[in-house]
Amino acid sequence: MIEKQLWFEEIIRKALEEDLGPGDCTTDAIIEPGARGKAVLEAREEAVLAGLHVFTKVFQALDPEMEFEYHYRDGQVVSSGGTICRVSGSFRAILTAERTALNFLQRMSGIATITREYVARAGKGKAKILDTRKTAPGLRLLDKYAVRMGGGHNHRMGLFDCILIKDNHIAAAGSIGEAVNLAKKNAPHTLKVEVEVEDLKGIEEAIRAGADMILLDNMRPEEIREAVRLARGRVILEASGGITLKNIGEIAGTGVDYISVGALTHSVRAVDLSLEVIKED
Amino acid sequence: MIEKQLWFEEIIRKALEEDLGPGDCTTDAIIEPGARGKAVLEAREEAVLAGLHVFTKVFQALDPEMEFEYHYRDGQVVSSGGTICRVSGSFRAILTAERTALNFLQRMSGIATITREYVARAGKGKAKILDTRKTAPGLRLLDKYAVRMGGGHNHRMGLFDCILIKDNHIAAAGSIGEAVNLAKKNAPHTLKVEVEVEDLKGIEEAIRAGADMILLDNMRPEEIREAVRLARGRVILEASGGITLKNIGEIAGTGVDYISVGALTHSVRAVDLSLEVIKED
Amino acid sequence: MIEKQLWFEEIIRKALEEDLGPGDCTTDAIIEPGARGKAVLEAREEAVLAGLHVFTKVFQALDPEMEFEYHYRDGQVVSSGGTICRVSGSFRAILTAERTALNFLQRMSGIATITREYVARAGKGKAKILDTRKTAPGLRLLDKYAVRMGGGHNHRMGLFDCILIKDNHIAAAGSIGEAVNLAKKNAPHTLKVEVEVEDLKGIEEAIRAGADMILLDNMRPEEIREAVRLARGRVILEASGGITLKNIGEIAGTGVDYISVGALTHSVRAVDLSLEVIKED
Amino acid sequence: MIEKQLWFEEIIRKALEEDLGPGDCTTDAIIEPGARGKAVLEAREEAVLAGLHVFTKVFQALDPEMEFEYHYRDGQVVSSGGTICRVSGSFRAILTAERTALNFLQRMSGIATITREYVARAGKGKAKILDTRKTAPGLRLLDKYAVRMGGGHNHRMGLFDCILIKDNHIAAAGSIGEAVNLAKKNAPHTLKVEVEVEDLKGIEEAIRAGADMILLDNMRPEEIREAVRLARGRVILEASGGITLKNIGEIAGTGVDYISVGALTHSVRAVDLSLEVIKED
Amino acid sequence: MIEKQLWFEEIIRKALEEDLGPGDCTTDAIIEPGARGKAVLEAREEAVLAGLHVFTKVFQALDPEMEFEYHYRDGQVVSSGGTICRVSGSFRAILTAERTALNFLQRMSGIATITREYVARAGKGKAKILDTRKTAPGLRLLDKYAVRMGGGHNHRMGLFDCILIKDNHIAAAGSIGEAVNLAKKNAPHTLKVEVEVEDLKGIEEAIRAGADMILLDNMRPEEIREAVRLARGRVILEASGGITLKNIGEIAGTGVDYISVGALTHSVRAVDLSLEVIKED
Amino acid sequence: MIEKQLWFEEIIRKALEEDLGPGDCTTDAIIEPGARGKAVLEAREEAVLAGLHVFTKVFQALDPEMEFEYHYRDGQVVSSGGTICRVSGSFRAILTAERTALNFLQRMSGIATITREYVARAGKGKAKILDTRKTAPGLRLLDKYAVRMGGGHNHRMGLFDCILIKDNHIAAAGSIGEAVNLAKKNAPHTLKVEVEVEDLKGIEEAIRAGADMILLDNMRPEEIREAVRLARGRVILEASGGITLKNIGEIAGTGVDYISVGALTHSVRAVDLSLEVIKED
Repeated sequence: MIEKQLWFEEIIRKALEEDLGPGDCTTDAIIEPGARGKAVLEAREEAVLAGLHVFTKVFQALDPEMEFEYHYRDGQVVSSGGTICRVSGSFRAILTAERTALNFLQRMSGIATITREYVARAGKGKAKILDTRKTAPGLRLLDKYAVRMGGGHNHRMGLFDCILIKDNHIAAAGSIGEAVNLAKKNAPHTLKVEVEVEDLKGIEEAIRAGADMILLDNMRPEEIREAVRLARGRVILEASGGITLKNIGEIAGTGVDYISVGALTHSVRAVDLSLEVIKED
Repeated sequence: MIEKQLWFEEIIRKALEEDLGPGDCTTDAIIEPGARGKAVLEAREEAVLAGLHVFTKVFQALDPEMEFEYHYRDGQVVSSGGTICRVSGSFRAILTAERTALNFLQRMSGIATITREYVARAGKGKAKILDTRKTAPGLRLLDKYAVRMGGGHNHRMGLFDCILIKDNHIAAAGSIGEAVNLAKKNAPHTLKVEVEVEDLKGIEEAIRAGADMILLDNMRPEEIREAVRLARGRVILEASGGITLKNIGEIAGTGVDYISVGALTHSVRAVDLSLEVIKED
Repeated sequence: MIEKQLWFEEIIRKALEEDLGPGDCTTDAIIEPGARGKAVLEAREEAVLAGLHVFTKVFQALDPEMEFEYHYRDGQVVSSGGTICRVSGSFRAILTAERTALNFLQRMSGIATITREYVARAGKGKAKILDTRKTAPGLRLLDKYAVRMGGGHNHRMGLFDCILIKDNHIAAAGSIGEAVNLAKKNAPHTLKVEVEVEDLKGIEEAIRAGADMILLDNMRPEEIREAVRLARGRVILEASGGITLKNIGEIAGTGVDYISVGALTHSVRAVDLSLEVIKED
Repeated sequence: MIEKQLWFEEIIRKALEEDLGPGDCTTDAIIEPGARGKAVLEAREEAVLAGLHVFTKVFQALDPEMEFEYHYRDGQVVSSGGTICRVSGSFRAILTAERTALNFLQRMSGIATITREYVARAGKGKAKILDTRKTAPGLRLLDKYAVRMGGGHNHRMGLFDCILIKDNHIAAAGSIGEAVNLAKKNAPHTLKVEVEVEDLKGIEEAIRAGADMILLDNMRPEEIREAVRLARGRVILEASGGITLKNIGEIAGTGVDYISVGALTHSVRAVDLSLEVIKED
Repeated sequence: MIEKQLWFEEIIRKALEEDLGPGDCTTDAIIEPGARGKAVLEAREEAVLAGLHVFTKVFQALDPEMEFEYHYRDGQVVSSGGTICRVSGSFRAILTAERTALNFLQRMSGIATITREYVARAGKGKAKILDTRKTAPGLRLLDKYAVRMGGGHNHRMGLFDCILIKDNHIAAAGSIGEAVNLAKKNAPHTLKVEVEVEDLKGIEEAIRAGADMILLDNMRPEEIREAVRLARGRVILEASGGITLKNIGEIAGTGVDYISVGALTHSVRAVDLSLEVIKED
Repeated sequence: MIEKQLWFEEIIRKALEEDLGPGDCTTDAIIEPGARGKAVLEAREEAVLAGLHVFTKVFQALDPEMEFEYHYRDGQVVSSGGTICRVSGSFRAILTAERTALNFLQRMSGIATITREYVARAGKGKAKILDTRKTAPGLRLLDKYAVRMGGGHNHRMGLFDCILIKDNHIAAAGSIGEAVNLAKKNAPHTLKVEVEVEDLKGIEEAIRAGADMILLDNMRPEEIREAVRLARGRVILEASGGITLKNIGEIAGTGVDYISVGALTHSVRAVDLSLEVIKED
């Protein structure tokens, strides 16, 4: 869906507005309006790329004629020192848009890169890596797109596209069974129902009530393995809470279907990319 | 400036819209519209708090009558296990706004917390810690506010409130001196001029051209110390590039005035905060 | 979700702006700014009410102090001649907001009223009445809320919260099985999969591929009955296409789970409501 | 004025946003990003077309290169089975935009079609058919454009471009004469004044006060005929209230100048149009 | 219509955003967040006031609790040295909003003040003073409101609420008569028709074609007097073009109905008002 | 920065919306949709041009294909009678956009023209002419751009890009010295500090506290001359308050660095420009 401009045009405009305000006082004072420039986008560390469309659109918001020659696509790995793309167009626009464009790309590629690492550590089994709703405010769709580029999968986009019954909902309803009943009665039948359980005895109750998915909250690997055994394939199982690069391999080995990792998006490390600008002769 | 609502009302609305879409299908199905709820916000690790105003406003966007009883203020340190505030109001609103409110607060407090650590490591000398423009798109003002709450200082807010002449500007102008001249001639005199230099010989040239500040780009501690000696207090000096928790102490010891750290905002680790929700009897 | 203001505040503002433009030239010329007024909202035909919250908010956009005394709630039936509510506040605001407020309420109540009729004709069996995405542009959430108030149920809110594989998707994928496979592979596992089939042989293929729901497109009652028999309860069945008040009873009798009716929202008849305005003494 | 994009760009964007949300999960999963498609827009019943520009713009919001080959223009009649246009472009964009584009076009053509029927039934006399302000919230300009395409005429666009003194204004002012005086004194002289009268004795009073137009509210044909006689051509007369396809012919025969029909826009039946999509080889 | 907030809330927000950007760096650094302040708004020259509601709303955008004690209302004359109102509330908000609030009020009062002077010079005859569409972009409604406060009247609000046939329209249509015919045929009958004529022979043609008003473009007083004679009260006459404080008296004496003056809004002199701020003890 | 569209696209859209509302009823009724037109923009008095980019964009908002052939650039002087540019495109768009386009251009050129006059009267000395924040709400950036085109310089863009300590700040802090200290301590070091002083003894205090600039508020020429003597080049001096075309020469002769003139933007006289429209054959 990243090809569609509706979603990220507005966040790009907001990002440029907060950086430019009334204008780039340095560039406007020093660079001639008509000057042309070229730049090269390079990786200073190995990274999985995500957000090249957004990177492009940031520059084109200032110079619609800006041209890009890409050597990589989103989802591909660039090595340290690799040249990602060449940019040419208004020199002012290159200098003015640079930081905003990189802020998007470095964050998104950071998410893709760490996702790939979790995916790799999870191994070749069936367990898939999921994101969560712990994204930077305003950047949900971009953050989740980056997870996909890193080989992860998306959990629900928001509160609206999947029912996820948590402890507070269960407490309010009185029991897992009653909570699922209410959800099935009052919410559209077009939505799946996931139930968060904190111990093994919740699993059978959730399955009987008709849950499509069960979220195993903060369970130890041996508990998860037992949950897999109890579920007997009748329901999709997701492990969540306390997942790290260290323990994901063990958890993936339990036979669980999905492992969700909040850190993919709530604690992002920007990857080191650099735009080397060259003035045209 | 965080007390003024103009700036963060819109980003709060956007954040809620991306999470709620057409509605919280789980909560709307299970919780009665009129139900009242209470919740307690707790720290699961030590943290410097930042963003409590924003946290409040997210809930009040859904329930304007939501009440908050704060035990801490922005900028204060809460210990692991500490109770930050008590919330009471519409139970639906508490459950629906929870994640969005925490996404803001955990990011902002993460920035404040790491900033405090850089400040502490810099020691009691005169060197102050600065942020950069490497912030999450759309969150610039919140990110920079959080840096202040952690004891750091803000570098320019954007491209508009301070002239910062970088290598590309210098290359285009022909020399440091010519770049500063163009800036002083063409930009408002109300703006300070900072010049980025990559070696020691740029310092004298920048000072003579009338720079107010010099950014020492990626210099080793001994170079910075020499720069301090050369400048003889005629100009404000800022060290930038490659700063880590490990080397900041040594750099602070060089006598430089400011040290800017991109990682404060480009690679944020969300602090672990938890909203424990309790249904009212 | 209708209690939350985020969604309908904007459409109310747009609706008022298009009606008021630079101002109500008649009311502003004739009515004193400080005059107080009262009005009574009456039904001129039997109707299921929907949209009273919106009705209220339209007036309060012009006079935040406007007061309402409701005798009915959304979802209730008012008889012809019944008094729905009493309004009091700024006389100018009452006259200026009247038409916009009624345009919302009459459309929404029109949807609720016809929905109730479809529900009644479907009888006491298990078949539930569904809406579609054939709503007035910009009014999707209000239209779908009105369907619920009439006793109907909502199909998906948009293209994002349920996978619905139609003939064109199947043709592109090559077969029902392949289309479902692609959906399950590429879309989030948190989404249900519905498949539209045009004849009975598609049913088994869809079930085997793992569809959660099957949409029986434009089938005759006897075909639907046969589909129910073939499905043997393994999948949710929805009849769609060509449903009218005349044939819905027969279709409901086939044992199908859901019947979707585009006419609920694409061809709305506004119910006849009237605001009788009385100037205060 | 439909050629100007300022007005309908925003409502198109809103309509797409409410339908697409975070994306078309079905099409994105099944159709390749680069796939090209073709489609044919066909009429399944005779209809007066209105909204082809809007139809075009909806698709082009997702694929600016989408191409259209139209066989009809707005205002023309297409027979059942007729091909209205051929569309070619991004296959994803065709599938994703289809429903939103049709929702606009089917509603607008529905308005044009019923308007033409009222116009036809009114006969060849001088009476012209008018719309009212009873339009769908947010769609006023599109609804009124559609009325013109069906051969009808527009009454005022909103509360701002013509003075229309109703019963409540008259009651507040004390008399028809006083209400007209206030309007002429306080409102811009550039606006015409219409007065709503409920019985024949109001007509002379309104004319003497200087009304440009008189709205005959809910009068029987014989009363309207008498009103025409009394007015002696000194004022424009408009019949309003309770107009149906059955009685419009008789009312048109009274000699009244205009007949306004709320049902043209408050109770729209979408015409049956279908977009048959074909994947390109 | 100035009491309704819909219209000026947005322009106030824009004005504050362009002045505050990321914040008032001076006030935020020097004034404590909780400090209370008082201020007195004084006139430094005689002025007709306009815009006190807007003045209030600017401050309340930053401090909703700000209190105002007004000694004057819009449309009243304040003498030089007179105290217009007392303000009390957040001291930060007073200092930060001051300039934006004054920018609105000084411009609007400037318009009202010069309008009053034109009205006075026109004398006690029937000629009324009109504004034009030559207003500051984005401030149309405020500018026109200010004209009314100065005793002037509003010409049309925009291109939409009155037909004004100018020379270019006449040239395109072929003749005045044909232009009026086209307007009456194609535009809603609810709109008045004004025709701009450049010489006396156009007057009879316009009247015969059915114009409601005639704009006498750039005519000398004797021509206008002759126009009045020729029109014999059959049509409203408006003199326009080249009107100054010097010649308006003579033009008003011709018997023309309206005199429109572009300078009321296209060349505004801000009146001198001053907000004297006092910190609370 | 005027080349970048982000800033003025929105104000152009707002300006067109307030003028066009639901449409140009005259032009739409009389001019054929497909008609082509040409027009010539002429000066009716000598003027410094500013805003030609904005002028262009207003027309192109209605007809993106509109073509312009410019004979002048912003900042150049056009004589009375001079042809500024030729426009060709949709005839409807030319007529509909004309007034809005001129409203921008006449105001901006008015600002540039008066600025040039102040600059000329200030003479060839070092004193530069500055604008203030007394701009029309919503038009700040355009007003300040126009000042530059007239040969003036910009003071700060808003409250955010330069510290300006005024009398109220000083009173709150207790002294000039304390106010400067607070500003230097609490505001970013990247901002310059200007202090407003009302008498000569404030000058030394401000310099000692570290002010970068001093605003001499409402001082007589002899005081300013004394201030220049006292400052001895240690600080930038700005004269402000009560500056007129009559006294600016004398003030410029005092040796002050900058002279700020509120009247440049708060009391603008639109220059007389005319768009002569010609229908294409």
